[in-house]
Amino acid sequence: MTATAHLVTVGAMPAAGADGAAVADALAAEGITLASRVFIEDDEAALERALGHDDALTVVLAGGGGSAGDSVRRVLARATGTRLVLNERVLAALQERYRRLDRPLPRRAERLALLPQGATVWVADDGESGWALVTGSRAFAVLARDASVKAMIEQHLSPFAQAWASGRGTTLVRTLRTAGLGLADVEERLADWLGPDGEVTVSTIPADGEVWVRLRARASTAAEATRSLAKAETGICALLGEDCYGRDGETLELVVGRMLLERRLTLAVAESCTGGLLGHRLTSVPGSSSYFERGVLAYSNRAKEELLGVPESILRAHGTVSGPCAEAMARGVATLAGAQCALAVTGIAGPDGGTPTKPVGTVFVGLAVPGETLARRFYFSGDRAAVKWQSTQAALDMLRRSLRGQS
Amino acid sequence: MTATAHLVTVGAMPAAGADGAAVADALAAEGITLASRVFIEDDEAALERALGHDDALTVVLAGGGGSAGDSVRRVLARATGTRLVLNERVLAALQERYRRLDRPLPRRAERLALLPQGATVWVADDGESGWALVTGSRAFAVLARDASVKAMIEQHLSPFAQAWASGRGTTLVRTLRTAGLGLADVEERLADWLGPDGEVTVSTIPADGEVWVRLRARASTAAEATRSLAKAETGICALLGEDCYGRDGETLELVVGRMLLERRLTLAVAESCTGGLLGHRLTSVPGSSSYFERGVLAYSNRAKEELLGVPESILRAHGTVSGPCAEAMARGVATLAGAQCALAVTGIAGPDGGTPTKPVGTVFVGLAVPGETLARRFYFSGDRAAVKWQSTQAALDMLRRSLRGQS
Repeated sequence: MTATAHLVTVGAMPAAGADGAAVADALAAEGITLASRVFIEDDEAALERALGHDDALTVVLAGGGGSAGDSVRRVLARATGTRLVLNERVLAALQERYRRLDRPLPRRAERLALLPQGATVWVADDGESGWALVTGSRAFAVLARDASVKAMIEQHLSPFAQAWASGRGTTLVRTLRTAGLGLADVEERLADWLGPDGEVTVSTIPADGEVWVRLRARASTAAEATRSLAKAETGICALLGEDCYGRDGETLELVVGRMLLERRLTLAVAESCTGGLLGHRLTSVPGSSSYFERGVLAYSNRAKEELLGVPESILRAHGTVSGPCAEAMARGVATLAGAQCALAVTGIAGPDGGTPTKPVGTVFVGLAVPGETLARRFYFSGDRAAVKWQSTQAALDMLRRSLRGQS
Repeated sequence: MTATAHLVTVGAMPAAGADGAAVADALAAEGITLASRVFIEDDEAALERALGHDDALTVVLAGGGGSAGDSVRRVLARATGTRLVLNERVLAALQERYRRLDRPLPRRAERLALLPQGATVWVADDGESGWALVTGSRAFAVLARDASVKAMIEQHLSPFAQAWASGRGTTLVRTLRTAGLGLADVEERLADWLGPDGEVTVSTIPADGEVWVRLRARASTAAEATRSLAKAETGICALLGEDCYGRDGETLELVVGRMLLERRLTLAVAESCTGGLLGHRLTSVPGSSSYFERGVLAYSNRAKEELLGVPESILRAHGTVSGPCAEAMARGVATLAGAQCALAVTGIAGPDGGTPTKPVGTVFVGLAVPGETLARRFYFSGDRAAVKWQSTQAALDMLRRSLRGQS
């Protein structure tokens, strides 16, 4: 037996939402398996089906505007056989919110205070509310997809999920992130571990430009799950060696940034085909201004010559998409910035610009670190976005491997 | 009545997948409503529930490795009450694939050829296969989440979905994208249109840093749906005016790039807090090298002075996060690049660096276009990623509005 949850997001929405990820993280922290994620725009039959899981916690995120919340209240009451009743606490919170806006509560807003009988109301500090309902082996938590969702998760959903999961068994999950390996490489190396046998389930996940290894330990107690997870993790890490760069939420840019900080090194970048994505990833890390000095997006040849001092002779002899050009770009931006380390990327992201000898997806990464400058050639498949992403992945990983030797 | 589909993605996966979006697009093109999207890692009970929709087309994307495909075959057979039988055509395709790899077909790979009785096999040009099953009012299409998925969608799923939807009614969807407006602004302006009444359902969607308006026209024939959609679109576009910058898949960077191209103008960018995201977005558009000349990621003060020629007096009097600095950065990069237009962004993305007068989220965007240089102050909420994104959104939209006047 294991504590299982389902996440249902209701209402019109663009692509994936960060609030769903926050719920998933909160559940994982309580040792609860998220068995399914469902996105429904406004189909009530699909919603009723998604709310029908037995012996599970179903978390519902209802999207903006109010009509999604109406559907959830109505369908959840139907699915659980409960009546909708006016909840005084929600009504008071609504009235308070409108009072602060100096507007009267619209009559039609009163319906927002109708909740299934027996529901527990959660009110966040800012007056927004969510609610929970437990009927038999089914538990429901309903949150609005708005600015207050993170506070609601922390203050209400997490304790509720913890209490609900208690005695239901624990699942602990660890993700090991690798760079520089293909899916087949990882599967071959971990052949003895893969599959659902044993206390820990090990699976591989092809992520963007990298491969993750997911370990899931299920046990009746947290201590037991922690023990088997640690044992499996040690064994698998030994097989992955330095190809494993981080775990769980640790991105490559975070790991590289930490290494630069520890070694008191600064970094500059020169980007051609990645057009800013490398700088964007590096500066996504809070505090990156301590080691990221500057970057140059040298899209045109003129920019490569003027800003980076790439000799015209190199451009003539080898072209802009070449190892010598990548090296010269890296050296050039390091000198310009007075930084000890530099990365440079030049390549053909497509869809146009490919040639028989340098097809779309051909990318050169240049690296300059104290005492060494080098370039490597890569060939990436996929569309423009995929080539750009994999190029930054390769560049960050080259720097990571080089910095490991400079500790 | 309307043709309804559900999308179920099975297997371990990182975040959202582009293959799911490709399926959604293909279904939308056939006038089919995608009522729900479900992501399931390996929970067979959740999978069986997700496969139980009546009078619907359910598309299943089964993820890497094979075990997800096994679950799908087994659970789908159970859900539809059919037997699994060995399919000679799939077996032959498998054997051929292994022959090309010069390896014998492993015995355990033979199970991949077990399909529910009555299934139709789809084989793509590269030997990968998918399959479809119709039982009563339920139709299923199963595709592997691999490199061949786009070919499978085009060659097999689309015609199958079209045939299945025929006579079931059509839904046409249009998304109108706005910039510079809040959700409440849009809802107020469209008050007469919002809600599920009438032939066209109109809803608002808060997307990343912008608001979308979604129109859905349901009708028994495509011609009828096209007619009501066009009528509603004309009415709503008139209300949104120039705040509506594009429709469906048209991103702000695409629209701005098209405007630059039409006006034969070039663009350079100077980024501080966005760290490359603005350049990345601009260069995500194929062909952007025709108008995007270069960018400078001036993260440090020294870089702002040295590369962009921002006078030290401005930095001293106003600080780096200021209108005068943003203007000087824009002018500086325009001059450096010899470009007619320039955008500059400087601000505090957080979580650190805020002050009482310039809290985290304070961002200045500088714009230089022929005959005009200006800066605007913004205040964005959210975390580092949200502030960076909204900053690029504001910068692109400032340029777009300015270019409208320069036609």
